Amino acid sequence: MSVLTIDLAAIEENYRILKQQTAPSCTVAAVVKADAYGLGIEPVAVALQNAGASSFFVALLCEAAALRRVIGPQAAIFVLEGFEEGEAALYEQADLIPVLNHVGAVQNYAAQAQKRGKRLPAIIQIETGMNRIGAPEKDLSAMASAAAALDLRYIMSHFACSDEAGHEMNTHQWEKFRTRASAYFAGIPMSLANSSGIFRSNAYHFDMVRPGMALYGLNPLPEQENPMRPVICLDLKILQVKTVQKGEICGYNGTYRFDKESIIGTVSAGYADGLPRSLSNRGTLFWKGYPCPIRGRVSMDLISVDFSALPGGELPEAGDYLEAVGANQSADALGAAAGTIGYEILTSLGRRYRRIYKKG
Amino acid sequence: MSVLTIDLAAIEENYRILKQQTAPSCTVAAVVKADAYGLGIEPVAVALQNAGASSFFVALLCEAAALRRVIGPQAAIFVLEGFEEGEAALYEQADLIPVLNHVGAVQNYAAQAQKRGKRLPAIIQIETGMNRIGAPEKDLSAMASAAAALDLRYIMSHFACSDEAGHEMNTHQWEKFRTRASAYFAGIPMSLANSSGIFRSNAYHFDMVRPGMALYGLNPLPEQENPMRPVICLDLKILQVKTVQKGEICGYNGTYRFDKESIIGTVSAGYADGLPRSLSNRGTLFWKGYPCPIRGRVSMDLISVDFSALPGGELPEAGDYLEAVGANQSADALGAAAGTIGYEILTSLGRRYRRIYKKG
Repeated sequence: MSVLTIDLAAIEENYRILKQQTAPSCTVAAVVKADAYGLGIEPVAVALQNAGASSFFVALLCEAAALRRVIGPQAAIFVLEGFEEGEAALYEQADLIPVLNHVGAVQNYAAQAQKRGKRLPAIIQIETGMNRIGAPEKDLSAMASAAAALDLRYIMSHFACSDEAGHEMNTHQWEKFRTRASAYFAGIPMSLANSSGIFRSNAYHFDMVRPGMALYGLNPLPEQENPMRPVICLDLKILQVKTVQKGEICGYNGTYRFDKESIIGTVSAGYADGLPRSLSNRGTLFWKGYPCPIRGRVSMDLISVDFSALPGGELPEAGDYLEAVGANQSADALGAAAGTIGYEILTSLGRRYRRIYKKG
Repeated sequence: MSVLTIDLAAIEENYRILKQQTAPSCTVAAVVKADAYGLGIEPVAVALQNAGASSFFVALLCEAAALRRVIGPQAAIFVLEGFEEGEAALYEQADLIPVLNHVGAVQNYAAQAQKRGKRLPAIIQIETGMNRIGAPEKDLSAMASAAAALDLRYIMSHFACSDEAGHEMNTHQWEKFRTRASAYFAGIPMSLANSSGIFRSNAYHFDMVRPGMALYGLNPLPEQENPMRPVICLDLKILQVKTVQKGEICGYNGTYRFDKESIIGTVSAGYADGLPRSLSNRGTLFWKGYPCPIRGRVSMDLISVDFSALPGGELPEAGDYLEAVGANQSADALGAAAGTIGYEILTSLGRRYRRIYKKG
């Protein structure tokens, strides 16, 4: 069985690094949506709480209930995709705070507040140029009126390009955010920055920052060395080593043909385990620091690599492990090799690994 | 919450279609590895058993225990990645049958058989050209000797190119399989064909076939109309609809810029839900049969699409659903749009959908 090691102490250290980037008065919330970016929301949220986090963001309501059970009643849980009619009981039971992204959501939640006779807590998300979810300027006046029945904890927006140093969108969004928040929601605490935004400018911090990827060891500053500690190691177990002859093929549809006698190994992991099929004939695994190129198609449960170029005469054997993510290849680098980003590598990690959670 | 509908009656019908392709004496096993190709091993295995399946294949030992609990003691469960020392108790407890892929595995399992004083059941997988797992010819004599202590149920191998009509590898592998099986394992039942192989030639059926993808509605004959019934529908919930201005961007890094005022919608699903990031600016969702192109990057939890070209004046609203897989787009077609195959779409389906299992 292949092994996924998740270093909870590194996640805690990453939380502290981000905390040090911000003023003491700034809340550093932790984004734990998508099962804490694939790493397991329960152990990860507990580690983050140990490191001092008391505000958590999930994307969907269905992600919040399990989180509440593990982090206790004191921490704040914000649900990014907001509130809909029919969800009131779930919000109340688990003491959740919705992010309201459009007029209708504010009106529905305000009606709920009046029904329950209390000013319910909420965040309002406003559009500043990313054009995903969040309210456009034309609706802000109506939202502010409807929100009078609510306890608005924050006004927030989200950066589209903060991973690109000096991108003009960053200052444009920042300016729109300040202008719109002060025009319609003066005096309400503000939140704009994601992981990259935290490092780009202190002016982006406002009252709360919302890191996700940096907590999990991905690089928020792609143009320079990663300031975060790596969090995962992924080691794939070798099932078999064999010699193939010149002219033979390897894997589905024979997309690789050996031009000389070669030694190949096949590991127990494939695209069903989150190693994208786009790594076929492109990706690399490592043995004792030496690269072993992937040959042929990545299958659902199996990947074959070439050992022929390994130095010395020493060869890995069945039962040994090859590194997919670790000292020689970051999750970001594996993502790049697959034509995607480290985030997609993390959120795709499958459920067939032996998962080891390392504590400090 | 977005909705994944899995039609168990269609899976049962697909099993019957495959059964009709083969002679009554041929066992039609069901491959349910990788959580039944992402569709949920427990309900899927029960449906397949209802349809008549009594032999099941998983890839890893860790997948077998849950399966045994739901299908009862009578069915045969085969574990493709085979047996290792230290796993004997798990094999015995759950009454599992390993697929032995190399000499060492046969020797270890034979030692186990001698320890337990009974001829334990096993399959031996032999190499015929795919060069993944399976024993090369030079080892077959030693494997046959070591296997004398075992109850060999089948000799098997696996097609590399059966999805390509008339590919020369198919006949080459078939010939090698017959020659090697009869030379080293005469009289032992044989199994070669996967889903596509079943349709390519009756000569490939032997004593057992092992379909996977065809059970789940993917097309085993890509060059012609799909003979299988579709199994899944994936409907993504719209969170918000808004108007964007000419010159504005959409999504991370502004990879799409609108060349006119447009109406966009954002749905609750992203690459963390198995909609690959490679669909960015390439994929299409459907509303009432009309295509809505994806604009900008697919995010972790969100995808935006363009409604501007919809006919009529009618527009979807927040709370409506867009089709990702269904009558207008098969899982195979969505995979192709993402630069991959339907298999990877299925095995990547996330855990944040409301899953509806439809019965007959």
